[in-house]
Amino acid sequence: MTRPSNRLPAQLRDVRITRNYTCHAEGSVLIEFGNTKVLCTASVEENVPPFLRGKGEGWVTAEYGMLPRSTHTRMAREAAKGKQSGRTQEIQRLIGRSLRAVVDMKALGERQITIDCDVLQADGGTRTASITGACVALHDALQGLIAAGKLSASPLKDWVAAVSVGMFEGTPVLDLDYPEDSACDTDMNVVITGSGGFVEVQGTAEGAPFARSELDSLLALADQGIQQLVALQKQAVAG
Amino acid sequence: MTRPSNRLPAQLRDVRITRNYTCHAEGSVLIEFGNTKVLCTASVEENVPPFLRGKGEGWVTAEYGMLPRSTHTRMAREAAKGKQSGRTQEIQRLIGRSLRAVVDMKALGERQITIDCDVLQADGGTRTASITGACVALHDALQGLIAAGKLSASPLKDWVAAVSVGMFEGTPVLDLDYPEDSACDTDMNVVITGSGGFVEVQGTAEGAPFARSELDSLLALADQGIQQLVALQKQAVAG
Amino acid sequence: MTRPSNRLPAQLRDVRITRNYTCHAEGSVLIEFGNTKVLCTASVEENVPPFLRGKGEGWVTAEYGMLPRSTHTRMAREAAKGKQSGRTQEIQRLIGRSLRAVVDMKALGERQITIDCDVLQADGGTRTASITGACVALHDALQGLIAAGKLSASPLKDWVAAVSVGMFEGTPVLDLDYPEDSACDTDMNVVITGSGGFVEVQGTAEGAPFARSELDSLLALADQGIQQLVALQKQAVAG
Amino acid sequence: MTRPSNRLPAQLRDVRITRNYTCHAEGSVLIEFGNTKVLCTASVEENVPPFLRGKGEGWVTAEYGMLPRSTHTRMAREAAKGKQSGRTQEIQRLIGRSLRAVVDMKALGERQITIDCDVLQADGGTRTASITGACVALHDALQGLIAAGKLSASPLKDWVAAVSVGMFEGTPVLDLDYPEDSACDTDMNVVITGSGGFVEVQGTAEGAPFARSELDSLLALADQGIQQLVALQKQAVAG
Amino acid sequence: MTRPSNRLPAQLRDVRITRNYTCHAEGSVLIEFGNTKVLCTASVEENVPPFLRGKGEGWVTAEYGMLPRSTHTRMAREAAKGKQSGRTQEIQRLIGRSLRAVVDMKALGERQITIDCDVLQADGGTRTASITGACVALHDALQGLIAAGKLSASPLKDWVAAVSVGMFEGTPVLDLDYPEDSACDTDMNVVITGSGGFVEVQGTAEGAPFARSELDSLLALADQGIQQLVALQKQAVAG
Amino acid sequence: MTRPSNRLPAQLRDVRITRNYTCHAEGSVLIEFGNTKVLCTASVEENVPPFLRGKGEGWVTAEYGMLPRSTHTRMAREAAKGKQSGRTQEIQRLIGRSLRAVVDMKALGERQITIDCDVLQADGGTRTASITGACVALHDALQGLIAAGKLSASPLKDWVAAVSVGMFEGTPVLDLDYPEDSACDTDMNVVITGSGGFVEVQGTAEGAPFARSELDSLLALADQGIQQLVALQKQAVAG
Repeated sequence: MTRPSNRLPAQLRDVRITRNYTCHAEGSVLIEFGNTKVLCTASVEENVPPFLRGKGEGWVTAEYGMLPRSTHTRMAREAAKGKQSGRTQEIQRLIGRSLRAVVDMKALGERQITIDCDVLQADGGTRTASITGACVALHDALQGLIAAGKLSASPLKDWVAAVSVGMFEGTPVLDLDYPEDSACDTDMNVVITGSGGFVEVQGTAEGAPFARSELDSLLALADQGIQQLVALQKQAVAG
Repeated sequence: MTRPSNRLPAQLRDVRITRNYTCHAEGSVLIEFGNTKVLCTASVEENVPPFLRGKGEGWVTAEYGMLPRSTHTRMAREAAKGKQSGRTQEIQRLIGRSLRAVVDMKALGERQITIDCDVLQADGGTRTASITGACVALHDALQGLIAAGKLSASPLKDWVAAVSVGMFEGTPVLDLDYPEDSACDTDMNVVITGSGGFVEVQGTAEGAPFARSELDSLLALADQGIQQLVALQKQAVAG
Repeated sequence: MTRPSNRLPAQLRDVRITRNYTCHAEGSVLIEFGNTKVLCTASVEENVPPFLRGKGEGWVTAEYGMLPRSTHTRMAREAAKGKQSGRTQEIQRLIGRSLRAVVDMKALGERQITIDCDVLQADGGTRTASITGACVALHDALQGLIAAGKLSASPLKDWVAAVSVGMFEGTPVLDLDYPEDSACDTDMNVVITGSGGFVEVQGTAEGAPFARSELDSLLALADQGIQQLVALQKQAVAG
Repeated sequence: MTRPSNRLPAQLRDVRITRNYTCHAEGSVLIEFGNTKVLCTASVEENVPPFLRGKGEGWVTAEYGMLPRSTHTRMAREAAKGKQSGRTQEIQRLIGRSLRAVVDMKALGERQITIDCDVLQADGGTRTASITGACVALHDALQGLIAAGKLSASPLKDWVAAVSVGMFEGTPVLDLDYPEDSACDTDMNVVITGSGGFVEVQGTAEGAPFARSELDSLLALADQGIQQLVALQKQAVAG
Repeated sequence: MTRPSNRLPAQLRDVRITRNYTCHAEGSVLIEFGNTKVLCTASVEENVPPFLRGKGEGWVTAEYGMLPRSTHTRMAREAAKGKQSGRTQEIQRLIGRSLRAVVDMKALGERQITIDCDVLQADGGTRTASITGACVALHDALQGLIAAGKLSASPLKDWVAAVSVGMFEGTPVLDLDYPEDSACDTDMNVVITGSGGFVEVQGTAEGAPFARSELDSLLALADQGIQQLVALQKQAVAG
Repeated sequence: MTRPSNRLPAQLRDVRITRNYTCHAEGSVLIEFGNTKVLCTASVEENVPPFLRGKGEGWVTAEYGMLPRSTHTRMAREAAKGKQSGRTQEIQRLIGRSLRAVVDMKALGERQITIDCDVLQADGGTRTASITGACVALHDALQGLIAAGKLSASPLKDWVAAVSVGMFEGTPVLDLDYPEDSACDTDMNVVITGSGGFVEVQGTAEGAPFARSELDSLLALADQGIQQLVALQKQAVAG
């Protein structure tokens, strides 16, 4: 079995994390999973949505978008169409939930952090790259609040990263690029914390339903990939 | 450990499937998971969306809605707000994918079946009830095409059903109602076919991330619940 | 002359009123005019729209919708299209006006009751069934406020019901179902109170304009039908 | 009893009909009912909506709008709000139905005439003035088609006009201006043809429901008013 | 060289300014530039948009619309399409900026004046006619505030008017009507105050780019035209 | 006089043009005017909008957007708001017109090129950077058509670039960054071709109207800046 990308089954694409990619946001990270490039910015606002007012807790939310020509053929601009697709909304809800799993909202206090994940170039795995990069942007924004004396310790309880896994010709493979994603029968996105806890598991049979044993091997592979991604996150903020 | 609902950990709610609930649709099923009541109708159209024209294949899609007062407090009507929420779109995409996994699109031919799942009363698990009921409505619509001489055999390759599972005070419990859903740390929706193949796995940590061992026990419980639901589907169409 | 429905000219369809059809709403009524089935729920909110704040008066409003497959061929879902049709808005304005005609807004106090009328199955006369069922749901919600000690007497000053009448082959006929509605030249919807006062008269010539004498006979027939409907409303809440 | 306008109970406001008010439309009429001024333009298009294609019939439709400062206080512009109100849609549907009642669609052939009714200044009765003026604009557009050799005879089978009537201090009064409309208990809009046939009757009790005898006297008064309006229409096109 | 309109190169169309054209607005002006007719109304509101609250300053803003049949062929109604075109928004932003250039916002105090410019008939130059008429409507609304004792002096610091110029067969020509606008290579709209200050210059090469010398001659011609328009504005309010 | 940026009055910011910035588009250029960074992609489509079909001509159009956190404080995402602002539409119309001025549409043939200009980071002058970068992206897409044998010569007749100029403390200054833009009384955007022809001139007095002599000095300065920008464009494609 040779993957379309020629990578080994358990091999991630080259992952690069560039901090301070743009200058205005409190956190700004360009994350690259091979040819997939997502700009993740974190914006801090000193108030919370209505349902949280006066509760002494903060909120983390996310929005997601693709530039019209981030894809192989041009996609219509969602702002011009006047609405976000179901896919867009599904992804931004996923990013927000994943990040909230590692933030202590009481420690954050009554402020909201919005993470914008905008895909500059897409080659599969935009949602997993978004989550992985967003966590670094969130980290940087929280460090900024500490530096500004607004927080005494970081509300970030753990790292969180995401990766896709799939079944290619009967073999579990890690971190699918676009051609691989199309060639796999089963596609699974997994969000795991630095300490190994599962935050989200989303598996979909593209063709034939998959067996429990396949699921088990995919989850094991995802776990392995996540630990590498978390190591890269830590290295990026240490650098 | 006593579940809020007083049910045993592996006990489904009372599930009732009423066919021919309304008179115009080619398939019309009221499914009840306890107090959750969803009307699933299947509508057959003799053409397909543009991306499939001339390919000799059919399509199955789904839409989902909640009546404004299906819930404890009134929700704003999506038609009046002028857009469907991200949650609505996420659910209707899930229902569509789940059904397509058990339909032979070539055998269906160039026609589209739209399943509308409208929640009359909500008490947790509206998406799992929707998928389970939708499969029966789809079955009935396909039988109607056979009866009308438009198909010689049913393109339905298998049954598909869905159920939620969660971790309540450390114990995996099956088929969460609304109060249980709020009390569980981890919420997982699982879509499985009659022959035991996984179609979708969607697990979310509401509070603390969950361990692989918890995931395993939840999946096993879901599998058990699905087999009961498929038995009820078969019984409903046999009756 | 034989009506398409085989009913006598002055004969209503079988009318059934089922209270407490769903469990969350303060009033919940399934009303059936033959095959037309509408779920009417009343939701009480302890505040009023901006234009009434601080005036010591309440408000009653209505929203209307049709499930996509309540009709013979599937209608596009208004939430998916992103707007309510002119017909929908016209009907919900009519339902609201009809109900407000029989409510003492001062006695209601600063609270709003929203009536949702959702058509589960349509066979003509959905707006008249909606008004007739909505009045019962409103009654039940008001009784709930009395039972809860929030009101000492019901602000419902009278009953109100609605019925359609039409000219079929020169004869005035009562309560048109869908095939009859298509076959009639003139279609009139009339809203009358229990004490016989007219609240709304809406007559439209579908083909040739109609004469004053026809109008007179239609109004007399409508009045007769309404008195039967009000008797059924009273019986339903007495039961 | 003295009407707020000092007019006699059965007295119309000064009605003026100015043809060719603007230069581009195939029919262009400024109609004034006292201070209510509506510009009605008829636009001919040589095709029909999809549901009529190939049937050899034409169509007449209407749109309605109010300039933002046609009213006493400025109304938000519907184009800026991004949607037409329910009231706007209800009125334009009424205008369209009223005009279609007097047009022979087979004789019109496969073309559509769109009537735009735009209120320049409002003082009550904008929908009745719109219908009355629209019929003249429609007449002129049809005469243009005859002059151009596209039609041999006019498809306009009769005139149609509209007027409001109301109950003021127990007396039926004709053609309500804005202050009178607010002061009347019952408001009725009636659309009648030149030969006396009823096209639409829309009566609404603003406060107390109204009795059948009141309805009868209002209808008689409306009929009287319409005959004067039709005379003015005929005079306008003769001039 | 003969212009399509037979006017001399530096000749304006007949310009007519009719004040008090409608009765409700605080300022209401019908301005005609030949066959182009725009109704400009000024509406005073005793509050300001959120970004100005509590700053002791006022605001002037504008909205623009075209009646569907103001043009040679019918344009779709923006309210029905559910959005304003880019052109509409561009024009209303231009009108607002032009008027704000001649108003002393501190002297106006915390109130907003909205100018609605609605095109009744279009024959080129609707934006320049709008600005020129809007300034008169604004003047009248401000005089009304003085008459009502709400202002002691007018915040209108100067007059402002606008005109188009273009290059026709190598000659600069003033105030283009629709056929001329189509025939010109370069189209420029210029907004100038009574004292000769430039407020806006918007020049667009329709075909070949234009030379600096052409630009200079166009600007000189525009300046000439504006002085005539300002004289007409002064005469209108003096009358 | 010292500019806020410390640049000389006639000094551009550092301008960088990076070609092939992303991999899918037929032309992909990152243009930087100091801290303003805009990604310009050109997408070729082998058909034209309806109004051009069958005419043997092509079309060039543009869309513009800002990433939510390209600005100092986060702007709401237009896709989430469901509409593009007037400013966005005005800018994308300007970019499109500017590019069309230098393209021979007959030579392009029946194909459309869409330029997307997405602002990654904003510091004033996003529209002028967009036009300048878009022309290079367009150039590259056209070269690709030549390389693919679809065109024999480039339809790009000339280069086009844009720059802002303003009046700062009485001195004309070139290429305003955000703080300078706020400090200037007059803001002018000028679009000029490589051969010195004016394509667009848009000047707005922010405070006091400006004199003809100021306009003249601003235009001369803009012309100087454009010639430098065109040299940089040529150098970029030569490199």
